[in-house]
Amino acid sequence: MRIDIITVLPGLLEGPFSHSILKRAEDKGLAEVRLHDLRKYGIGKQRNVDDYAFGGGAGMVMMIEPIINCMTDLKSQRQYDEVIYMTPDGDSFNQSMANKLSLKKNLIILCGHYKGVDERVREHLITREISIGDFVLSGGELAAAVVTDAIIRLLPGVLNDETSALTDSFQDGLLAPPVYTRPADFDGWKVPEVLLSGHAANIESWRFEQSVRRTRERRPDLIAGGISAEKGDNIEERNDN
Amino acid sequence: MRIDIITVLPGLLEGPFSHSILKRAEDKGLAEVRLHDLRKYGIGKQRNVDDYAFGGGAGMVMMIEPIINCMTDLKSQRQYDEVIYMTPDGDSFNQSMANKLSLKKNLIILCGHYKGVDERVREHLITREISIGDFVLSGGELAAAVVTDAIIRLLPGVLNDETSALTDSFQDGLLAPPVYTRPADFDGWKVPEVLLSGHAANIESWRFEQSVRRTRERRPDLIAGGISAEKGDNIEERNDN
Repeated sequence: MRIDIITVLPGLLEGPFSHSILKRAEDKGLAEVRLHDLRKYGIGKQRNVDDYAFGGGAGMVMMIEPIINCMTDLKSQRQYDEVIYMTPDGDSFNQSMANKLSLKKNLIILCGHYKGVDERVREHLITREISIGDFVLSGGELAAAVVTDAIIRLLPGVLNDETSALTDSFQDGLLAPPVYTRPADFDGWKVPEVLLSGHAANIESWRFEQSVRRTRERRPDLIAGGISAEKGDNIEERNDN
Repeated sequence: MRIDIITVLPGLLEGPFSHSILKRAEDKGLAEVRLHDLRKYGIGKQRNVDDYAFGGGAGMVMMIEPIINCMTDLKSQRQYDEVIYMTPDGDSFNQSMANKLSLKKNLIILCGHYKGVDERVREHLITREISIGDFVLSGGELAAAVVTDAIIRLLPGVLNDETSALTDSFQDGLLAPPVYTRPADFDGWKVPEVLLSGHAANIESWRFEQSVRRTRERRPDLIAGGISAEKGDNIEERNDN
């Protein structure tokens, strides 16, 4: 899988992409993430990428031309499945969307900055608009990093067993159960006895109960349709709701 | 405002915090963000910070002791308003929460990694658990960066007029209207005429209509309680819903 990220601040993303899982995925040849400095496609001597908004008001707007030039360049090299724009009014990013995007081959992600991009870019060039939440960031870069991380860790072979994605929150429509490690007693703070029992079936059923209880308490919306008897049932449906 | 971030991957966050708005806020003396490498507080020669989960199963768990030692060190230096843990089962981060957190003085943010932290850390040391969305990341670092960015850009003086936060999506419970910049006609893609009219009142009312329409189409949940006649009315209530 390849992800091309178009940004005015490539330096912001170098750290996230040279560490942790993303680095490992690149090293294993499972994913390729490329940062493209939009300013290289900027206009005139100053390499301008933004201009004042028509109609006035605070905030600069990212111009069409540098973006179209950058995308044309990329599209001449390969076929893209989606051209994504990170924006707070896009579709909400969730685990189900991450699962689906992880099946794609080539993605472009455009990071908004300043007051956003010229609307005509969104109308004519973008195939999917994604929001990571109901909040505003200083740019789309961190949002793009979040989406990239969530997708790439799902690619087969990226995670080893120790960090298996299968028991994550949301993958089965339930929140993950509590986890504990040594010491069993830390100044009187104790680990639940069942986890020390060595009784696999009891542990499994305790974890399922804890998952359900935690989901009921914290995110009843995730199980509004009712909990199936078997954990893992109706994965897709529940995540989509 | 000061934010102390505890992480096992400080390198991942150096890029985001040395660029853009966060850098500007630091340079102006308006915010101080410090990264703390948890491994410095690790146990034994190997500086271990994680161990196997009690009860078995995939995934390492972050141990109590390094975290408590790091937090004790920080707390001996100043009083903290909140000790935040980034976790997918936390309270949903949104603009209203960002507004509230931007009024605090000192925050600790603990980034989860591996399979998460020992539950006893959450019970005894954490005062607030925050999720940036219904998806799983390879660690809490990017989530912490998102929260930090969303908070710090709200501090008075961090944004200049060009990037004013006042017209952002969510600040008034509506999505932002479309924006356009030059050229007015790009190969036949035209800017709406009203924006070229120079008629301030018409432009203002067009923008409000567009905001309402976009919110109705994309996020009817934001205005389920009805739209007020005046933009900006009931800001707090709508964002909290």
